[in-house]
Amino acid sequence: MVRQVRAVRTRRALVRAAAEVFAEDGYALASLPVISRRAGVSTGALHFHFPSKDLLAREVEAAATAAVQRLVVREGAGGVAGGGGLQLLVDVSGDLVAAWAVDPVLRAGFELGGDPSRKSVQGPGRWWSEWVYALLCEAQGAGELARGVSPEAAAVAVVASVAGFGRLACGHRVRSSPRLVEEFWALLLPGLVAPSRRLPVLPGPRAAGTDRTPR
Amino acid sequence: MVRQVRAVRTRRALVRAAAEVFAEDGYALASLPVISRRAGVSTGALHFHFPSKDLLAREVEAAATAAVQRLVVREGAGGVAGGGGLQLLVDVSGDLVAAWAVDPVLRAGFELGGDPSRKSVQGPGRWWSEWVYALLCEAQGAGELARGVSPEAAAVAVVASVAGFGRLACGHRVRSSPRLVEEFWALLLPGLVAPSRRLPVLPGPRAAGTDRTPR
Repeated sequence: MVRQVRAVRTRRALVRAAAEVFAEDGYALASLPVISRRAGVSTGALHFHFPSKDLLAREVEAAATAAVQRLVVREGAGGVAGGGGLQLLVDVSGDLVAAWAVDPVLRAGFELGGDPSRKSVQGPGRWWSEWVYALLCEAQGAGELARGVSPEAAAVAVVASVAGFGRLACGHRVRSSPRLVEEFWALLLPGLVAPSRRLPVLPGPRAAGTDRTPR
Repeated sequence: MVRQVRAVRTRRALVRAAAEVFAEDGYALASLPVISRRAGVSTGALHFHFPSKDLLAREVEAAATAAVQRLVVREGAGGVAGGGGLQLLVDVSGDLVAAWAVDPVLRAGFELGGDPSRKSVQGPGRWWSEWVYALLCEAQGAGELARGVSPEAAAVAVVASVAGFGRLACGHRVRSSPRLVEEFWALLLPGLVAPSRRLPVLPGPRAAGTDRTPR
């Protein structure tokens, strides 16, 4: 039992260390000895848990995908305040940017998808893009979107912008990025939402406490 | 003279081949022999023109930055149709996505900026981000933006979305991406533009020929 707990802890430390090293050096240059040293385990232990760098990267991607899915489930389970599916999208995107700032595994999972030395197509980016697109199509079906809005263009804009804000969030402007996400939604919603549905959708529950004047 | 012309042609072939290989394999794994072979020149000629991979990458980035600057100058010189600075932004962003699809040097210049194995900060991405941000600040000063719009959030959304559409443009959906950029602007403009300025700004001159109903 103790051994099992230790194995889980070792795997977790390796995944986190790998995420950090992938983010710093890219997949191609990431060194397994550097990863095992940073995780505080032997290279033998690393090879026991992950026989190849590819398997380690897949585990980072799987853990990141699971983290995004947890955000979706958590916001979804809280009940939608009245804005329908779009409110869920607004809330989850804010959570995702916030998580990007503090969770190196989530961040690395997304970045591995765009790393040309890896060419991965199974990371969280794909799952998230498909979720956003499906949600926007559903919102369109439910009459939430303004007439003529393209769910495909909106999905690209949302997915790309959230990644852009996420990258800012782990730079030096970490404190301002949740505010920037709110400002992004304030910018996008007038064109996105059907006039009859406009009021209930707000840029995240955090907006309630800010001094931003509604537009 | 003949020798000079040949040298210019060789440099150009090397920059293009390097751009393609950087895009395919990433900076870290890009092999100089593969690049010289693809350019149809000897490795000796490659080393004569570019003594290191870093110098080759810098040249790709400089050429890509110059390409973006040319788009800006070309659209700017054409005269602004009446929508002010925002019209220029709309037009240039459409051109940039179109160029992304067909110009491997431009594309690689942008992608090198996000390649963790390179950590470049001098590529076209930086110039383009700063240009978009400055233009939005100017538009705000000129009363073109809706009240309360954050030029910073709008700049992140525009820069990230254009890169997103650019990446789509060099995938299998190349034909639909100019339309997606138009749809993106149709989505963003209602929240971005001051009501008094709303009419003149259109998603690019290409929009005139489409059947999109104005919103």
